[in-house]
Amino acid sequence: MKVKIVEVGPRDGLQNEQKVLTLEQKKRFIELLIQAGHEFIEVGAFVREDKIPQMANTGELLMSLQKNLSGKVNLSVLVPNAKGFMLAQKANAKSISVFTAASETFNKNNINASIEESLENFKAFLPEAKKNKLFIRGYVSTCFGCPYEGKVSEKAVLNVTQKLLKLGVNEISIGDTIGVANPTQVKQLTKKLLKLVGHKKLALHFHDTRGTALANILSGLDAGVRIFDTSSGGLGGCPYAPGASGNVATEDVLYMLHEMGVKTKIDLNKASRAALYIQEVLGYKLPGKYLQSIKEIP
Amino acid sequence: MKVKIVEVGPRDGLQNEQKVLTLEQKKRFIELLIQAGHEFIEVGAFVREDKIPQMANTGELLMSLQKNLSGKVNLSVLVPNAKGFMLAQKANAKSISVFTAASETFNKNNINASIEESLENFKAFLPEAKKNKLFIRGYVSTCFGCPYEGKVSEKAVLNVTQKLLKLGVNEISIGDTIGVANPTQVKQLTKKLLKLVGHKKLALHFHDTRGTALANILSGLDAGVRIFDTSSGGLGGCPYAPGASGNVATEDVLYMLHEMGVKTKIDLNKASRAALYIQEVLGYKLPGKYLQSIKEIP
Repeated sequence: MKVKIVEVGPRDGLQNEQKVLTLEQKKRFIELLIQAGHEFIEVGAFVREDKIPQMANTGELLMSLQKNLSGKVNLSVLVPNAKGFMLAQKANAKSISVFTAASETFNKNNINASIEESLENFKAFLPEAKKNKLFIRGYVSTCFGCPYEGKVSEKAVLNVTQKLLKLGVNEISIGDTIGVANPTQVKQLTKKLLKLVGHKKLALHFHDTRGTALANILSGLDAGVRIFDTSSGGLGGCPYAPGASGNVATEDVLYMLHEMGVKTKIDLNKASRAALYIQEVLGYKLPGKYLQSIKEIP
Repeated sequence: MKVKIVEVGPRDGLQNEQKVLTLEQKKRFIELLIQAGHEFIEVGAFVREDKIPQMANTGELLMSLQKNLSGKVNLSVLVPNAKGFMLAQKANAKSISVFTAASETFNKNNINASIEESLENFKAFLPEAKKNKLFIRGYVSTCFGCPYEGKVSEKAVLNVTQKLLKLGVNEISIGDTIGVANPTQVKQLTKKLLKLVGHKKLALHFHDTRGTALANILSGLDAGVRIFDTSSGGLGGCPYAPGASGNVATEDVLYMLHEMGVKTKIDLNKASRAALYIQEVLGYKLPGKYLQSIKEIP
């Protein structure tokens, strides 16, 4: 069995870290991830630099990385609106992501728009992205629970997913933004999503807030999901979601999958080196358990 | 579905903490665990106090706790040898545990005896324990991997398990002492163990060293296991196993199981209070993820 890993550490991770990295540090980190065998990496976001300084220089970073890049490696950038899309095009992005949620209140607090408004907003640039043959990923946040609304219905998730598909996205990432999902819920929702989306387009995105991320990945895997988002060392969280903390750590996921005989194209030792590098840059112990278990640099 | 949780924090947890608690602190901790609904708690060990001062006063602790104890609550003590059994009897223990391993090298390094020698050693007191109708739990360490030998064969695990059953133990706890197990391995071994032991006597004991403990519990649950060992706040580890760190946290397990609709008799909020108490006593942040996600005392 083979699984596709989407490394979201440089974007979803670093965006939520206090320390603002230099262009060179971000570049070095992503180069180490590529050396580890990662083929799908979200490297930055075209968001307001005054609000999210962590994501500054995304255009420069992307262009710099794309020089001498192997054709196998896909670097994507988050694009919140038409202005961001313009900047992504200027940086010659081949792959973009858009962001909405399954919970109205979360979407309003997170991006100051209703779900419908966020989808309308995408219509201003997705047709051109399609025309230019960009790979488009659609994130749906709070699919398993919302910090403001509590429970989120499967219907709400399926509804927004269907609308994103209609807009032509190539991959849907279903997020447990605040880390409340449980394996039974994952199995139930995932089975319905697989019917709608198919296993080639469906990704699951878990946070390890309550320790359940790997169990949820196992449950998704059992149900037939073959794409998972992970974050180097367990970087990140979500500043708009009270109680959210840390994406699931890439190395923990790789350890479990590889030991189970599930293949990825990533080398666990080299992935750990990337995480150890970013841990040193940030200057504190990252939450990834596998990383913490390492006694010497692999 | 119902699951039996065996709380091992006061023994397997505290034994591996640097700080030595007072009798009163241990008593308060265990009382909070009982208030949370725990019915199976390993409270201490009759080991050499000069070597493991954390387990001093186990007899006094047990006797003190057993005053006014509800009939539903089972407090057990670890008994390494005939001398320990004598002390357990003196303290009026109703339930004891014995300890061996599936890996020869680990057993030799851990308790300075071969597996066969450790089983022989148990024969000196298990018949009397049976006669006195004590509940006997047998631990088997390093069932999924050994820090010295690496892989451990299923045959080795099944072999020692069968011998423990012949000695009359009432429950077998299969341990992933160094936290290397993966869900596929758990399912495979567990299915064989269930045939040999039955679900009423088989417990799984995971460490969360590489973040896989909850996924392994999920896998064991799917295979039919209904007894799991957990440790309040994720206390403990194993000083004799390089790289070992932390039993799986009780609250993480309860969160996952309860959210899945699996019943235990334990209140998650009250269990968290017990963990927060012991965290304060120890003076550092325990590894349990659920505990870390709590913003205010429940």
